[in-house]
Amino acid sequence: MPDPSPVPPGAFNGALLIGDDEVHAGRRFTAVAAATGMELPGGFVCAEAEHVTEACRLADAAFDGLRRSSPERRATFLEQIATEIVALGDDLTDRACAETGLPRARIQGETGRTVGQLRAFARLLRGGASPGARIDPALPDRTPLPRPDLRQMRIGIGPVAVFGASNFPLAFSVAGGDTAAALAAGCPVVVRAHPAHPGTSELVGRAVLAAARACDMPEGVFSLLGGPDHAVGAALAADPHVAAIAFTGSRRGGLALAAIAASRPVPVPVFAEMSSINPVFLLPGALAARSEALAAGFVQSLSLGAGQFCTNPGLLVATEGAELAEFLRSAAALVRGVPQAVMLSGGIRDAFEAGVARWEAHPGVERVAASDAEACSGGCRAALFRTDARRFLDDPALSEEVFGAASLVVTCRNEAEMIAVATALEGQLTATLQLDAAADLSLARRLLPVLERRAGRILCNAWPTGVEVSAAMVHGGPFPATTDARTSSVGTVAIERFLRPVCFQDLPEALLPPELLDANPLNLPRLVDGQPVAGS
Amino acid sequence: MPDPSPVPPGAFNGALLIGDDEVHAGRRFTAVAAATGMELPGGFVCAEAEHVTEACRLADAAFDGLRRSSPERRATFLEQIATEIVALGDDLTDRACAETGLPRARIQGETGRTVGQLRAFARLLRGGASPGARIDPALPDRTPLPRPDLRQMRIGIGPVAVFGASNFPLAFSVAGGDTAAALAAGCPVVVRAHPAHPGTSELVGRAVLAAARACDMPEGVFSLLGGPDHAVGAALAADPHVAAIAFTGSRRGGLALAAIAASRPVPVPVFAEMSSINPVFLLPGALAARSEALAAGFVQSLSLGAGQFCTNPGLLVATEGAELAEFLRSAAALVRGVPQAVMLSGGIRDAFEAGVARWEAHPGVERVAASDAEACSGGCRAALFRTDARRFLDDPALSEEVFGAASLVVTCRNEAEMIAVATALEGQLTATLQLDAAADLSLARRLLPVLERRAGRILCNAWPTGVEVSAAMVHGGPFPATTDARTSSVGTVAIERFLRPVCFQDLPEALLPPELLDANPLNLPRLVDGQPVAGS
Repeated sequence: MPDPSPVPPGAFNGALLIGDDEVHAGRRFTAVAAATGMELPGGFVCAEAEHVTEACRLADAAFDGLRRSSPERRATFLEQIATEIVALGDDLTDRACAETGLPRARIQGETGRTVGQLRAFARLLRGGASPGARIDPALPDRTPLPRPDLRQMRIGIGPVAVFGASNFPLAFSVAGGDTAAALAAGCPVVVRAHPAHPGTSELVGRAVLAAARACDMPEGVFSLLGGPDHAVGAALAADPHVAAIAFTGSRRGGLALAAIAASRPVPVPVFAEMSSINPVFLLPGALAARSEALAAGFVQSLSLGAGQFCTNPGLLVATEGAELAEFLRSAAALVRGVPQAVMLSGGIRDAFEAGVARWEAHPGVERVAASDAEACSGGCRAALFRTDARRFLDDPALSEEVFGAASLVVTCRNEAEMIAVATALEGQLTATLQLDAAADLSLARRLLPVLERRAGRILCNAWPTGVEVSAAMVHGGPFPATTDARTSSVGTVAIERFLRPVCFQDLPEALLPPELLDANPLNLPRLVDGQPVAGS
Repeated sequence: MPDPSPVPPGAFNGALLIGDDEVHAGRRFTAVAAATGMELPGGFVCAEAEHVTEACRLADAAFDGLRRSSPERRATFLEQIATEIVALGDDLTDRACAETGLPRARIQGETGRTVGQLRAFARLLRGGASPGARIDPALPDRTPLPRPDLRQMRIGIGPVAVFGASNFPLAFSVAGGDTAAALAAGCPVVVRAHPAHPGTSELVGRAVLAAARACDMPEGVFSLLGGPDHAVGAALAADPHVAAIAFTGSRRGGLALAAIAASRPVPVPVFAEMSSINPVFLLPGALAARSEALAAGFVQSLSLGAGQFCTNPGLLVATEGAELAEFLRSAAALVRGVPQAVMLSGGIRDAFEAGVARWEAHPGVERVAASDAEACSGGCRAALFRTDARRFLDDPALSEEVFGAASLVVTCRNEAEMIAVATALEGQLTATLQLDAAADLSLARRLLPVLERRAGRILCNAWPTGVEVSAAMVHGGPFPATTDARTSSVGTVAIERFLRPVCFQDLPEALLPPELLDANPLNLPRLVDGQPVAGS
């Protein structure tokens, strides 16, 4: 289907982007301005099952070309995507702000992060480690049996279905970390755009496709499907060409995808980042030394971005006493002063208010403070609650995430209760120790092994919001933080989710991929006979 | 419960081995001699749900001690297990031969392989790469935001349930590759022994426990549960302390475990190696050059160990013509001369005979040859069948594994049909190209990308039986070969199944594990700022 009216850079027309085609026909839906609840200009085509099928068919057809392209070519492609996104400039910022209600500086920062992620994967590819090349040369004279020539490398797992998150319209969306990692691994991507920011999604999707054309990538390396219906996502997760699923969102959404993936004739891995309350342990020495500073850091982290971060500190754990009372007084005063902030969507605000209402109504929970700010349309009113360890341990519902700027303080009578609370926690993205480096060391040493088993990232004297994109980052963790604790969705280690090893035994040189040739033309670092050998 | 009669090394008494305890009370079952179908001496306690619970509770309690032990300590433990197994000598060989019907030389070879695997993981631990340590130092002056200090390492995922296979009573059983990889990763192991070789299992289980005591490992790092009931395995897979499941066996068994794992309140990963027909493509040039040698190599690989290997070549694909006819004549003559061989159990023999009977009765399948050898008790009669590509493509049932020495030849009219057959294949452990390095290169280049997507290991001019234990080996592959194509169950890469990354942000030195200290006291190779830095 030819494009009836070519779209200039920075504009969108509501089409589905399926390989080189645009689909303009069909039902349309509109975007809503988070701040006003009003419809924004532009109608967006709702993807149907046939569009899912076609996008996945094209992705499958593109897979061999993409995965067998050189790391350098994929690096160039990722950098070109970054360049195209930067070129969108204010067009992207304006639309993303309107759709999400997030402040301009935040969108600009997130654009920088998105571009930085793409470039980080390009650097990773150029570093040569991602194929994980291993060579065990033949030992023809070994007894009792000779050893064949064995060469292993990791290749892309296949087309990846990426489900964009609502709370990061750029960094965890159309060209976010999942897409960057999958493309870097050589896997075509079919994105199911989040319906809360369809214009932002289309702008970025067009940037990816412009980069694919500029880099002469095969048609189908990227497609963008939108629509408000869960059926689109379900069809995408079930499509036989999809080899892996990446998702950031609610526990319910992630579990639904995991159930679809497990019941397919050919099950596929699901990397869903779902739910985390990010416990913060305020140890006695830290409380005694700096309760006011802790309160300030906590309320800032709690209220950042209306609390709409996966790593928002939703649980504080501390022992009772004058120091905790002091902390709560300071925190309460600050919470009362938190201005209301627009939430991403009506659905998210409704869920937040329902979560706060559950705590308000809970006989074992007491409100410490709530924001005094006047209600604004679509706004989030920060709130702080408290309960005690016995009640917390008795009611698993108190461990459920309330997405937004609300947090629960669990007071413990002693260290044993604090450890019992830690032990009862579900899997988390993060766990934080606020400690005094001298006074709290012994308790921290007891908590640490408990938290290591329950969280992907452990922080000391820091706050969990803010996730660095780097080699050592882990943004993941045991269930239900994610569906697969063996990975991360942020940082360069994320590429490993979309790779699988293949071993070649006794292949003639003429058939070996360049990654595994004796001459090492790509200058890759490799393991030879199990020992690391540098690339060049 | 104290041991009523201490068991000397090399003997067994039928107990369940749960941590430091032996359980002698309860229902018992007996082992059957594969060669005669007669009961062997000794009765073995059937594990019940309470034993599963206790073994898993102890494993959980032992986890922190094991995972936080130094790589050197775990290496010593693995080597001590190897030493204890070697010390079992003829006691182990005699019992394993009796229970499995496998020849003495095979059991001795497999013992060597088992011991070699344990030692390979010890070497891996001493090499220091398994924690995958990564350090991104703080950048306090970075703008707009400073970077915190981030340090990542991989830790054990938690207690692992290992399901021993029937066809490798040592190398894929109680102290086989899965157990070695899990212990190396710092994960306690609860083994569900295969009921076809309970005496062998107990002998090896006692060797593991002797090594654990000699190395002062915490109680619960290893337990052994036996019994003929599927309920034991189901309870083990469902136990809340189990963090991962490793299995080698049938497709039905693997899928049952995967279903249990996915429906737990906290789902866990399953690494099941299940089903593979290991296609071999006989390319025209190879057939023209050496059809007789190919037939000899094929029939030897087909009949090895009564065909009871996961990598047994169950499918041959070739183009019609005089060369294929010649190959089939040679192969038929050799198949007719294959002596009968004892199969591992009555159940396996029954399944083999049922599979062969399905092919005999299939209107589109023709028998090429069957062994002329006289029937022996428990024996496997080698057989070769043929069909053509159209019939094969029309009937997915013809792709199902027949475990044992039977293979199906698919004849193709042309190269396009050969590629269509390759494309229609399910996931495989191996795929093999028999080729002439000059004449067949172009066809091999077309088949290779198809096979890379469907197999974990690709061989040229070799036969798939025989799996080297090395750094570059992949014994895995897309579904249904395994439930997770991103790993291998053989070779040192297998350890990665049982590791997960944890990131420490801004931890004081006093709380950091030695793997991540600036001084690098363990001399580990690490990534610093994404760049490899050698250990010493």
